[in-house]
Amino acid sequence: MVRVTKMHALGNNYVYVSEFEQPLDESEFPRLAAAVSDVRRGIGSDGLIWIGPSNAADLRMRIFNADGSEAETCGNGLRCVAKFAFDRGFVDRRRFTIETRAGIVTAEVHPEGGQVRQVTVDMGIPRFGTDAVPYRGPERGDSVSVAAAGETFHGVLVSMGNPHFVCFVPEVGAIPLAQVGPEIERHPHFPERINVEFVAPRGRGELDFRVWERGSGITYACGSGACASVAAGIRLGVLDPSVTVHLQGGDLRIEVKDGRVWMTGEAVEVMTGQFHWPR
Amino acid sequence: MVRVTKMHALGNNYVYVSEFEQPLDESEFPRLAAAVSDVRRGIGSDGLIWIGPSNAADLRMRIFNADGSEAETCGNGLRCVAKFAFDRGFVDRRRFTIETRAGIVTAEVHPEGGQVRQVTVDMGIPRFGTDAVPYRGPERGDSVSVAAAGETFHGVLVSMGNPHFVCFVPEVGAIPLAQVGPEIERHPHFPERINVEFVAPRGRGELDFRVWERGSGITYACGSGACASVAAGIRLGVLDPSVTVHLQGGDLRIEVKDGRVWMTGEAVEVMTGQFHWPR
Repeated sequence: MVRVTKMHALGNNYVYVSEFEQPLDESEFPRLAAAVSDVRRGIGSDGLIWIGPSNAADLRMRIFNADGSEAETCGNGLRCVAKFAFDRGFVDRRRFTIETRAGIVTAEVHPEGGQVRQVTVDMGIPRFGTDAVPYRGPERGDSVSVAAAGETFHGVLVSMGNPHFVCFVPEVGAIPLAQVGPEIERHPHFPERINVEFVAPRGRGELDFRVWERGSGITYACGSGACASVAAGIRLGVLDPSVTVHLQGGDLRIEVKDGRVWMTGEAVEVMTGQFHWPR
Repeated sequence: MVRVTKMHALGNNYVYVSEFEQPLDESEFPRLAAAVSDVRRGIGSDGLIWIGPSNAADLRMRIFNADGSEAETCGNGLRCVAKFAFDRGFVDRRRFTIETRAGIVTAEVHPEGGQVRQVTVDMGIPRFGTDAVPYRGPERGDSVSVAAAGETFHGVLVSMGNPHFVCFVPEVGAIPLAQVGPEIERHPHFPERINVEFVAPRGRGELDFRVWERGSGITYACGSGACASVAAGIRLGVLDPSVTVHLQGGDLRIEVKDGRVWMTGEAVEVMTGQFHWPR
């Protein structure tokens, strides 16, 4: 048996296992990730997240996709890790650090009535334009134009560690995302492919948001995409430094302070129990 | 919190809750079924199965689909209910009865090393032909012909409580099921629509099997379809009374004794724990 907890953040859902609760064999993580993720014969999730001690930070997390491959990091997963660790007393401060494969991240939990519901995560420093994002086209600068589905899309290039192409449009619902998204993702100007965001400000503090995620397609919530979009909007002068982003899976609050992007959003515990393992 | 157990049989997976473990409010079952079934914000399952006391049998089960609607019965679910009740000591005999919306069913568990792995369920008496299955075409008898996707399919009509059209073919993999299945399901000759099985005997004791389930499409395991197919094969004289059926989700053993069909197959516990409810 393995003690497991299922959590989600904006519908991005993982099964969490913790070295603080039980000894775990790391060589089994890819197989365990595939087993718990399978909704038919397992629990059902986007993958497995392991939480344990770190030599470099207060905690360490590792993320395994449903196919057993290891991911770098995940903003929605980070928020759940922070809630999990604080609620169970594996950390005793509200602000602490989490080691990921992509580096060390600062998280801050906001407990209400003894339980954490909202978590803030430091998403790092955005970088802009053709020097920051792998780009093989003829233009130079913060924004470029790309042809897809018979139209030309003008967008800001933003790196949040991963690459984004953020297009400001009048109405996000009017974009044929399933058609346009894959064409831009695989456009020859983007040699490492790209995440594509369509965003529409409602005033200076709110942003409608839809995303085509590189490698995943249309998803309900992409934390780095929300951060990239707000950073782009501030750079263009159309957004204030604190913005509520309306994603399909729910809202995120994005704040830019001293050049860093902080993302605040929900983290929800769904169930906790024992998973039959090994089979 | 609600105590929950996830189980599957040939990949057909439900979250089980039991009145023997806790008091439950039946008016909440449709909402609870939708909540646990949602893989994004819940656990992830085909639905919810409630197990509790019966006035007419040893146990009673109720099945709620992921959309909150209540189903009649489910052979894969029945096997899991039987395992659950025996493993936890809610019944003390190996053979016992379970009340469903479709009637009372006899189940027999086969414990190995203290745990039930295989369960046999009485699937009832098959009835054959145009008098047993809702049929509005010109033919009379056990089997009829139906045109779909430019071809003519000849099959046996079998009622196992629900209606089946069983076609014996040389090779089940050669059938374009996604195209043929929906056309036969909704053919005007079947006023209440129909389940469609394509089967190929390997000798007299084994059967390859693919199914298009009425209302669900291609599924990995349809217990009543496996029973209908073996009953049809025995009636045609091409199968012996004990047959292993190879479904996409795994194997079922189907036996016909004294005119009744008994189905034996796996029942697997995946995890057990506490689900956060109400939200």
